[in-house]
Amino acid sequence: MDITASTAALAAAAADVVRLVPTRLTDPLLSGMLLRAGPEGVVLAAGDRERTARVTCDAVAHTDGAVLVPGKPLAETLRALTVDTVRLVVEGSRLAIRADGARFALPLLDVALHPGVPEPPPARGTVPGHLFATALSTVAATASRDDTLPVFAGVRLRAEDGGLVLRATDRYRMAIARVPGEVADLDVLVPAQLLAEVGKQVGAGEVVLGMDANRFALSWGSTAVTTAVLDGVFLSESSLVLDTADTFVDLDADALTGAARRVALYTDARGVLQIDVGDHEVRLRGADPQAGEAEEAVKATVDGGRTSPAVQSRYLVDALRPFAGKRVRLAIQPGMRATAITSLDPEEMAVKYLMMPMLPPKQ
Amino acid sequence: MDITASTAALAAAAADVVRLVPTRLTDPLLSGMLLRAGPEGVVLAAGDRERTARVTCDAVAHTDGAVLVPGKPLAETLRALTVDTVRLVVEGSRLAIRADGARFALPLLDVALHPGVPEPPPARGTVPGHLFATALSTVAATASRDDTLPVFAGVRLRAEDGGLVLRATDRYRMAIARVPGEVADLDVLVPAQLLAEVGKQVGAGEVVLGMDANRFALSWGSTAVTTAVLDGVFLSESSLVLDTADTFVDLDADALTGAARRVALYTDARGVLQIDVGDHEVRLRGADPQAGEAEEAVKATVDGGRTSPAVQSRYLVDALRPFAGKRVRLAIQPGMRATAITSLDPEEMAVKYLMMPMLPPKQ
Repeated sequence: MDITASTAALAAAAADVVRLVPTRLTDPLLSGMLLRAGPEGVVLAAGDRERTARVTCDAVAHTDGAVLVPGKPLAETLRALTVDTVRLVVEGSRLAIRADGARFALPLLDVALHPGVPEPPPARGTVPGHLFATALSTVAATASRDDTLPVFAGVRLRAEDGGLVLRATDRYRMAIARVPGEVADLDVLVPAQLLAEVGKQVGAGEVVLGMDANRFALSWGSTAVTTAVLDGVFLSESSLVLDTADTFVDLDADALTGAARRVALYTDARGVLQIDVGDHEVRLRGADPQAGEAEEAVKATVDGGRTSPAVQSRYLVDALRPFAGKRVRLAIQPGMRATAITSLDPEEMAVKYLMMPMLPPKQ
Repeated sequence: MDITASTAALAAAAADVVRLVPTRLTDPLLSGMLLRAGPEGVVLAAGDRERTARVTCDAVAHTDGAVLVPGKPLAETLRALTVDTVRLVVEGSRLAIRADGARFALPLLDVALHPGVPEPPPARGTVPGHLFATALSTVAATASRDDTLPVFAGVRLRAEDGGLVLRATDRYRMAIARVPGEVADLDVLVPAQLLAEVGKQVGAGEVVLGMDANRFALSWGSTAVTTAVLDGVFLSESSLVLDTADTFVDLDADALTGAARRVALYTDARGVLQIDVGDHEVRLRGADPQAGEAEEAVKATVDGGRTSPAVQSRYLVDALRPFAGKRVRLAIQPGMRATAITSLDPEEMAVKYLMMPMLPPKQ
């Protein structure tokens, strides 16, 4: 193999692959990056037993060929280079990265021992990249970081009414986003961690979704990823929202976020703040034996009853994040049932956020 | 006490005090912030047994007085506020922070039990703030993070030829900066950690240095800090540089930094890279059984011999940082003696960086 490519483009491609398939230190072979040079440029790919990623990058191939080299060192070397073009060439048992006055030589791993990167499963539809990215950043962040219970560490992607609905929950809250698009016959549970990274990489173009019996695939631009799907029965939305909301509060999301952040400094060890619903405002209250007490009012339009839940301050701030700059409606249910947050402004990509209440803080 | 002040100014003052005297969790009293309101505004102060800080802030005092409250919660609350002005008023056993629609109440601590913040020791001279800040950022970063040996965790500040010389070493390297100014009769060893923070806060104005038997003081703008001085005999510069340099290499600091960063990705577990001095260039070389090998040339003007040291790549990058954008001279001594880096460009504040060599990497 012997190629010349734009350093910036190759560095970006290598970095994307490394971020989509993070290195497992247990197996040096699976931490390798496959490079395949041909008339179409160079394909960078990596894969462990669960997921794969491949990115195509423009390059001039002086000699075709395929090699396997340590992925992270390759990405870091390319990132550190400041010259415009770089040459990657096999020299004996090394892949040399050559740039003006410099030579970096990575050991070649045995490409024959790598499981390879299979073709992605068949497509089931497309969604617009920018809306999908926004939906992912909200929904994937709501899943649990703890992957011992896959159903809480995954995002459920389901074709509904032609569009795509994304749902994630960690038991205490649930995010639901509806992305318009043309998707059919899709219902999978996908690791949230991978989707969070995809959300950062997806651009403005179309994203293609695909699946087969046990794999899910996404592709956009010159990038494609596949992952094993998660097992588990996803918590139903209707188990949290029972249509018993009796209190509706309309207010400015940013004002509520600001107040929640400040009052959060005065909450107890659980981080719980009380939302007192009044006639023309909500009052957030926090109290802690050490820190002292805090109370802040936020103007609101209140309809129905005066049901006043207590919530995790951190979850409230998270829940309001997708609604930054918008007016929102809080639909509050009595008892230990979820509060739903939705936007009052029209939006292309609709988000609903459900938040379970907590026992109120001690007075 | 009852004052009204600009939220931004008061938040900045409280944040500066908290950064200069970090909270010790062992004693809640010493984590308190003293607020003293009078006709001159409000003075915010904190102190533990080793250091003190005080910042004066404009404020309208409706009622004079002094209180002690938890420092970090006060600073965080002020920082989180977005309104222009804020009122701090004693209400029973609380200091209330009042802003539009919000009330935050901090418990009052017993001001009588606080050791207080004594007046700073007498002045010994002044230096220009911007040069002093640059010198501190270089020199304080060179001291050891480990404060079990005070002499390596401190910066020596010494009046020399009317100016101020700052020196710090962690045994493997030494930074020396000469700041012009009017300073006399000063020679102290001061905790580097405090000076690093001072370097971030000092502005363009003058900085006054003071000392007495066991305290050192700095003041600038409306801020003053004092600290207990460290004990210990500082390593002499002349023990590292013996005037035996036989090889002089002049080159571009940024080019060498870039090459060092890249080759550092291929160094062994010790992080050592070899600097091979040639006729018109230096070649940096690194090799690691796993990572592979790297070699990069940097154009240079070489004078004298061809002594070629091996150095810690991280230390080389650190050593070049104060010379960013400049041409530097490396004066290399044979054997296990220090290499000195100085600027070839004229500068108001002169830095010399000494770096001990390492045993060369295995081939």
